[in-house]
Amino acid sequence: MFSHQKVLQYPAKPDKPDALFAKKIQEILGGQYGEITVAMQYLFQGWSTRGEEKYKDLIMDTAAEEIGHVEMIATMIARLLDGAPVNEQEEAAKDPVINAILGGMNPQHAIVSGLGPRPADSNGVLWNAGYITASGNLLADMRSNINAESQGRLQVARLYEMTEDKGVRDMLSFLLARDTMHQNQWIAAARELEEKNGIIVPGSFPKELEADGFSHSLLNFSEGEDSKEGSWAAGQAPDGGEFKYESKPKAHGGPQELQPAPQYVYPK
Amino acid sequence: MFSHQKVLQYPAKPDKPDALFAKKIQEILGGQYGEITVAMQYLFQGWSTRGEEKYKDLIMDTAAEEIGHVEMIATMIARLLDGAPVNEQEEAAKDPVINAILGGMNPQHAIVSGLGPRPADSNGVLWNAGYITASGNLLADMRSNINAESQGRLQVARLYEMTEDKGVRDMLSFLLARDTMHQNQWIAAARELEEKNGIIVPGSFPKELEADGFSHSLLNFSEGEDSKEGSWAAGQAPDGGEFKYESKPKAHGGPQELQPAPQYVYPK
Amino acid sequence: MFSHQKVLQYPAKPDKPDALFAKKIQEILGGQYGEITVAMQYLFQGWSTRGEEKYKDLIMDTAAEEIGHVEMIATMIARLLDGAPVNEQEEAAKDPVINAILGGMNPQHAIVSGLGPRPADSNGVLWNAGYITASGNLLADMRSNINAESQGRLQVARLYEMTEDKGVRDMLSFLLARDTMHQNQWIAAARELEEKNGIIVPGSFPKELEADGFSHSLLNFSEGEDSKEGSWAAGQAPDGGEFKYESKPKAHGGPQELQPAPQYVYPK
Amino acid sequence: MFSHQKVLQYPAKPDKPDALFAKKIQEILGGQYGEITVAMQYLFQGWSTRGEEKYKDLIMDTAAEEIGHVEMIATMIARLLDGAPVNEQEEAAKDPVINAILGGMNPQHAIVSGLGPRPADSNGVLWNAGYITASGNLLADMRSNINAESQGRLQVARLYEMTEDKGVRDMLSFLLARDTMHQNQWIAAARELEEKNGIIVPGSFPKELEADGFSHSLLNFSEGEDSKEGSWAAGQAPDGGEFKYESKPKAHGGPQELQPAPQYVYPK
Amino acid sequence: MFSHQKVLQYPAKPDKPDALFAKKIQEILGGQYGEITVAMQYLFQGWSTRGEEKYKDLIMDTAAEEIGHVEMIATMIARLLDGAPVNEQEEAAKDPVINAILGGMNPQHAIVSGLGPRPADSNGVLWNAGYITASGNLLADMRSNINAESQGRLQVARLYEMTEDKGVRDMLSFLLARDTMHQNQWIAAARELEEKNGIIVPGSFPKELEADGFSHSLLNFSEGEDSKEGSWAAGQAPDGGEFKYESKPKAHGGPQELQPAPQYVYPK
Amino acid sequence: MFSHQKVLQYPAKPDKPDALFAKKIQEILGGQYGEITVAMQYLFQGWSTRGEEKYKDLIMDTAAEEIGHVEMIATMIARLLDGAPVNEQEEAAKDPVINAILGGMNPQHAIVSGLGPRPADSNGVLWNAGYITASGNLLADMRSNINAESQGRLQVARLYEMTEDKGVRDMLSFLLARDTMHQNQWIAAARELEEKNGIIVPGSFPKELEADGFSHSLLNFSEGEDSKEGSWAAGQAPDGGEFKYESKPKAHGGPQELQPAPQYVYPK
Repeated sequence: MFSHQKVLQYPAKPDKPDALFAKKIQEILGGQYGEITVAMQYLFQGWSTRGEEKYKDLIMDTAAEEIGHVEMIATMIARLLDGAPVNEQEEAAKDPVINAILGGMNPQHAIVSGLGPRPADSNGVLWNAGYITASGNLLADMRSNINAESQGRLQVARLYEMTEDKGVRDMLSFLLARDTMHQNQWIAAARELEEKNGIIVPGSFPKELEADGFSHSLLNFSEGEDSKEGSWAAGQAPDGGEFKYESKPKAHGGPQELQPAPQYVYPK
Repeated sequence: MFSHQKVLQYPAKPDKPDALFAKKIQEILGGQYGEITVAMQYLFQGWSTRGEEKYKDLIMDTAAEEIGHVEMIATMIARLLDGAPVNEQEEAAKDPVINAILGGMNPQHAIVSGLGPRPADSNGVLWNAGYITASGNLLADMRSNINAESQGRLQVARLYEMTEDKGVRDMLSFLLARDTMHQNQWIAAARELEEKNGIIVPGSFPKELEADGFSHSLLNFSEGEDSKEGSWAAGQAPDGGEFKYESKPKAHGGPQELQPAPQYVYPK
Repeated sequence: MFSHQKVLQYPAKPDKPDALFAKKIQEILGGQYGEITVAMQYLFQGWSTRGEEKYKDLIMDTAAEEIGHVEMIATMIARLLDGAPVNEQEEAAKDPVINAILGGMNPQHAIVSGLGPRPADSNGVLWNAGYITASGNLLADMRSNINAESQGRLQVARLYEMTEDKGVRDMLSFLLARDTMHQNQWIAAARELEEKNGIIVPGSFPKELEADGFSHSLLNFSEGEDSKEGSWAAGQAPDGGEFKYESKPKAHGGPQELQPAPQYVYPK
Repeated sequence: MFSHQKVLQYPAKPDKPDALFAKKIQEILGGQYGEITVAMQYLFQGWSTRGEEKYKDLIMDTAAEEIGHVEMIATMIARLLDGAPVNEQEEAAKDPVINAILGGMNPQHAIVSGLGPRPADSNGVLWNAGYITASGNLLADMRSNINAESQGRLQVARLYEMTEDKGVRDMLSFLLARDTMHQNQWIAAARELEEKNGIIVPGSFPKELEADGFSHSLLNFSEGEDSKEGSWAAGQAPDGGEFKYESKPKAHGGPQELQPAPQYVYPK
Repeated sequence: MFSHQKVLQYPAKPDKPDALFAKKIQEILGGQYGEITVAMQYLFQGWSTRGEEKYKDLIMDTAAEEIGHVEMIATMIARLLDGAPVNEQEEAAKDPVINAILGGMNPQHAIVSGLGPRPADSNGVLWNAGYITASGNLLADMRSNINAESQGRLQVARLYEMTEDKGVRDMLSFLLARDTMHQNQWIAAARELEEKNGIIVPGSFPKELEADGFSHSLLNFSEGEDSKEGSWAAGQAPDGGEFKYESKPKAHGGPQELQPAPQYVYPK
Repeated sequence: MFSHQKVLQYPAKPDKPDALFAKKIQEILGGQYGEITVAMQYLFQGWSTRGEEKYKDLIMDTAAEEIGHVEMIATMIARLLDGAPVNEQEEAAKDPVINAILGGMNPQHAIVSGLGPRPADSNGVLWNAGYITASGNLLADMRSNINAESQGRLQVARLYEMTEDKGVRDMLSFLLARDTMHQNQWIAAARELEEKNGIIVPGSFPKELEADGFSHSLLNFSEGEDSKEGSWAAGQAPDGGEFKYESKPKAHGGPQELQPAPQYVYPK
């Protein structure tokens, strides 16, 4: 059960309107690694956690926080759109800056949402649930979370470079900090789980059922042997095995041949 | 530039046809974490790697390998569909096994692809590029890869449980092994990069621009304090900071209020 | 800012597991008119409401409630999947009930989410934000909400018919009641707004700019005149105009002709 | 069965080409509430209407009309694109207006459709059938139609503000009028049905199976009690019940807890 | 401008209800090559044809016909769903036929559309406009049409094999015939255009701007030389050139290397 | 099994960076008819070809070639983005060219991929597998391939017009040539198959099961008889039949009427 307070976790006030940046910052609202993604991902992970209360609580803490981040960015976008110029042509001929804004803003900010945020990325592509992960395996999901917070913080850092607005930058500095914490916490959680279950996901699949002759070999399918120089080509692997390097990978299966098709699928 | 050999990396021959399992195994061909996803993800990462030849080569080695995995599973599906019963009703009344097959197979395996594989998941949902990640930041992408191989191996393990067919299980044992290697290699690469660039992505964003009072606090937005028991709530964080726990998170921003809308968006 | 309590608004406990129904009830979790849709729709509407605090609060009350409904149905699905049989063939031959389950369950409930809910509809199609509406015009959005709660309650009623499980039916009886309330509240709000702004959305568009000779005529583009019998073909229209009926609609525009294409788009 | 006449319902001739506006007006062709949506929605509703000839005919009349609207807007777009400048850089340096056009037009209007309309919205996102509704319940669908025509007319009004072209505005004035009529007709139809079947959809679900203690309460899940001031918080509800207001909503369900996962889904 | 007659082009009456087949036949309504696709494709092609009245009329004739085909299949699905059993469990245990239906029908036929057709394929995936083509080049589009009618007729033929219902088969025999005509007509039109504009699309691109040393060589990127046996490896090509066969394709470009990334995208 | 060489098939070096063109050329990387489409289409066709080694090898040759084309365009985009200006406002006010670039570039090239290519079209819409075709019928698929290469070459020709960059044009001249070859080869292959199997797909469906009274008639559903002037309205059809022209197409089916809906779907 959820409840809502009518205050923001952190200020979300731009110094001045900027319809072009409103378009760009949509990426961290409704893009692949935007706040909708992490909010929904953590909700589904939390609701699917079976036992493991400590982890479940951590996930739900963060899920509820992230809905608040969606709220902050949604608010920022609405404020960036205040007074957005929507008419074209006439002024455009006169003022090249307005000109670029008219040409470059997300038209749906004017036509569809009436100066509100859109559940979409910086190109206007609508958010979809193919962006989220909740697998029922805690370590797998911690890794998904580490990735999501890494990609997310990277995008925030890039957006920080793309504006000089102090109010926008202030909010981004907060999101950067929270993404630092979230990377830290998911890494800490993953380390705990790796100690318990081993480094390879899933840890409980019987080793003897795996074709383990293939479990530690780097197969050189791209010409050149630069990859041989890395820590992944020789020495001890993270799971304790011994890395090998196969210069010319062999084919172990036969030809990719199929039986003829039956008449009832009309191959001709 | 790519070239193709007409042999499979490993055998992909089921003991007998099984149209129901053909539907299920589509998940690891065309699902969110299927082989198309990793093949495309590594290709886009490799093609976008600027400098860093050792990593670029590792990524391209694995990309080319994964196209071969798509090929193996595509072949397996075509063979599982050999002789799939496509007619209904009459027989269904008599034989509960055929019955289940008629009701449960992917109808597009008969109607659309004529007993061939589909670029789709186990529900027939078409693959889309929202599943892949290539960010231009190597550590971020290694984390995406660790996640993808963890989710992928988990799904293969579950499919292993869902069939008794020795030929299918043999192929799955190979995929399990390769996913072990790929988890190992991406983890090794990530560790190298973390040593160079730090544990938080991106490592080069100036610390002083981050609102670092918020960088190490767990905010308890979900009732109960189970999450306080984890390694993420106190002590040293992976990036060297000190974890804190905030029982009752405060709001630092003001009310979520907006200015009235201008007439030209017709708020009324 | 949102916070989470670890209790459900209403019980979500099936009497017994039922993997087939778990698939079906996904519709009201992640379908076009499922709870994710209304939760996200109300959040975006609330965050975009400019002034009009009374409406904004109503919308946010309901948004927070709906996240709790997503939670309830997610929980129900996880419980319906407890102990779902995932193996096939052998048993199928013997037991027609298991048989139907094997053929008919959502394979991703086993392979992808590990017995957890999916952010998808009853066919496994992933939720996307094209299902939601937040226009910046309150009356338009109230109408979207009335529709959403009508479609939603209809689907719940149909699902009620499709199960005999008392625990499931108990939860559905609660959702039916809440959808009754939500229809009531949005209708009440719409009536208030219609009184203020008029019945046609948007109410503030200048009447003289509309081609009002066409504003009240039913155009009979489908043969037969059954439609002439309705209250929409004669008499006073809801906006106070006079309905007319045009038996043989005329064309007022010229031919659908275009200029030849320039060479630079290579029409040949 | 359908037939086509080679004239437009109303003129669709811009005064002059305008590639930027061609991009924007795509919203009402192929967006969520564009003409493709209403055409397809009414077709599917009409084809699914069982009995109820009067309503079926009304729906089919409007469906056929809307295909004609798609035609008009498609024509308008093709004409707005006549002579669109497609080359860049050189001229751009010299003329800031052409400049903005080159940067802001939909590139697919040049590359993909060769100066023709696209089945997509103003951001180039392709139309999909998740935008339409046909439920088999007439009142529910009338409400969907009222919403669609309200959102649609709102978008047309906003587009009217965004251009000074008299030819474009003339066509929009016609669409505004037709959307007025369509709102009127669907509201009239809905009122008829509400009188017969009651205000809550579906009207025939047995009241005694609903948890009716929850059917008229506003639950205050968002802090502050502004929402208490509305007509939805006290007094008679549209369905005849009595509205109540619950300041501090209680949890009636137990904890959101799940049983541990079985080994065969590899939770570890 | 379009008008509608309330009769079907051809009967669409199944001998008896069949909810499983209702699911399968959705493929030719709302699948990639279903009737919605061809109807929408021809409409967009027709509306975009500039001059060339003879072709434009042919395209519009067929477009209007195809909307009528959508109507026929929609009607067939509604009739196949008459009396579909929607309840589960109890009966399932007893009757394997009902059993298969319960497990195998499209649940949205009961929950969402109330026994009506869905704008979706045989797996319930919603139709989207990425399936259609309208390029502004007539010959290119004729080729798209030839393909669409070939794929479409193939799917109808396969569905014919999958049912014994005489009423269904009768309708399919009509669709097979119309697809025969449509293949014939588009092939005839393509031949006319090839005679005028040449066999390669687009025909008007200046030959001297093409790297024509590469215009007639088969590059052997897949091991083995079976492909050398075809009519495409030697002799005169359809455009009059001379086919060549390159056993070991050479690389003409340099290494796939990129410059280092600037700091402002945070590569580290 | 696939292997990768670190050289490009042909140079992919622009004379200078151009972020606007980087956005546009995405169309032939990740659009409906971009290189990802043909690569994936040929892979799935090749892997599904049953017997018919000569065709299978031709398809796999071309599939492997096309992955190399994806690589070339991906490289071109990365190079076009070198040094893309990502900051706005300040400079924009001063320089209208940079201005247009800032407004018109794909924001994800900066925010998401860090100056790398995206698996998306020129509007940023993500690639999806609904663009590809692999039907299990060789002639049908050859026709899909002829269409794909025709649309693809048309788009390349249009892009050629849209840039003056000699390096970009050089690469496009190579792609034009390869698309010429691919049109030639698929046409040659189709002709071979048409000679063996007949001109109508599928060729093996029994003629007597088709309602052949409808197999050669042009039905005039769009007013005017321009279409009567074509080679498709009289004389011999490509399959040897005799074309007929029906001025006023008749309805052969009865009314589009359905039985009333049962109570359990709550039509009221």
